[in-house]
Amino acid sequence: MTVESRSIRLNTQGHCDIVDITSEVAKQVADSGVKEGAVTVFVTGSTAGVTTIEYEPGLVADLKEMWDRVVPEKVPYRHDRAWGDGNGYAHVRAALLGPSLVIPLLNKRMALGTWQQIVLLDFDNRARSREVVVQIMGE
Amino acid sequence: MTVESRSIRLNTQGHCDIVDITSEVAKQVADSGVKEGAVTVFVTGSTAGVTTIEYEPGLVADLKEMWDRVVPEKVPYRHDRAWGDGNGYAHVRAALLGPSLVIPLLNKRMALGTWQQIVLLDFDNRARSREVVVQIMGE
Amino acid sequence: MTVESRSIRLNTQGHCDIVDITSEVAKQVADSGVKEGAVTVFVTGSTAGVTTIEYEPGLVADLKEMWDRVVPEKVPYRHDRAWGDGNGYAHVRAALLGPSLVIPLLNKRMALGTWQQIVLLDFDNRARSREVVVQIMGE
Repeated sequence: MTVESRSIRLNTQGHCDIVDITSEVAKQVADSGVKEGAVTVFVTGSTAGVTTIEYEPGLVADLKEMWDRVVPEKVPYRHDRAWGDGNGYAHVRAALLGPSLVIPLLNKRMALGTWQQIVLLDFDNRARSREVVVQIMGE
Repeated sequence: MTVESRSIRLNTQGHCDIVDITSEVAKQVADSGVKEGAVTVFVTGSTAGVTTIEYEPGLVADLKEMWDRVVPEKVPYRHDRAWGDGNGYAHVRAALLGPSLVIPLLNKRMALGTWQQIVLLDFDNRARSREVVVQIMGE
Repeated sequence: MTVESRSIRLNTQGHCDIVDITSEVAKQVADSGVKEGAVTVFVTGSTAGVTTIEYEPGLVADLKEMWDRVVPEKVPYRHDRAWGDGNGYAHVRAALLGPSLVIPLLNKRMALGTWQQIVLLDFDNRARSREVVVQIMGE
């Protein structure tokens, strides 16, 4: 049984930038040599989250519009009054989505569907450099 | 330390079908012989998700109504314009809920409350055959 | 490779009480001696959930207000009609947020950002005693 902790560095545009990180995660899984186990994908920071979606331009736009409706940028946030950085909505969205995702590995492959990609959502109101931890545990 | 990867096959009705899979997961856990560890429940595909809820008919209906309010079927989705399959809302709901859930095993039992069941939510707009991966890791 | 299953007991006020449990989880991680691995944080029960947020009073209030907008207490819930305990909204919120969170451990430290704290959200409509399972797996 081994644990391999790796990470992905990427630059995002913020403003609900939705980035497909499936191939980077798959590369780390392949490099680890783990056959049966699981990969944890975890984003460090409090204004981003991870999930899966069919990564095609229509759905990427649909998912952004959902966030605009459900946790709008323009309602008043106390965080913004106190800190003035204008990204209260980004923190609240990230808390609702969550920072972690666990994907089983079956015979060296992630148990994803054909149209199911791993995405990082960066809700912050500016471009960011992000670190996503990719941790593979198994044998 | 062992890793046991199993799966559950089930047929759903779609349209926010909410299926209690607790007993099937518990059976896989019991069969694995793992005493201390965790079980990862992961649904393959991009129009379904997993979580826990008290599984009683009132709450099952309440949870469906929440999805109808928060991510409605009838707002325009670009996915539907591009692909014509009418299930854009299902993809967006699944991305918000997430495909994975991790439950600790304590002395061979899942750390669930008495009124806390594991559920698969199938948001798709048609009946589906679903595969849920149940992976047990521990000793 | 070891598995250490621990738990945190805490009293909450309910009504979307948001409690920072980071230091308690960090203490369990330190006591475990695990260097590389992951910690699963799981709340037992169907009216609470876990996530991460920057724990400052403005955002704590903002997150509560988001729940009041997205899954309001005052829409009719069938659970309340059937059971009369008035906490249908709490169950639905908990199902949307989810009970589990997985955080990688890198050289004995959780992969959290500086302004990223682990929080328990207790949605129930009364004060509760809660058990949060903290399970550390790794080597």
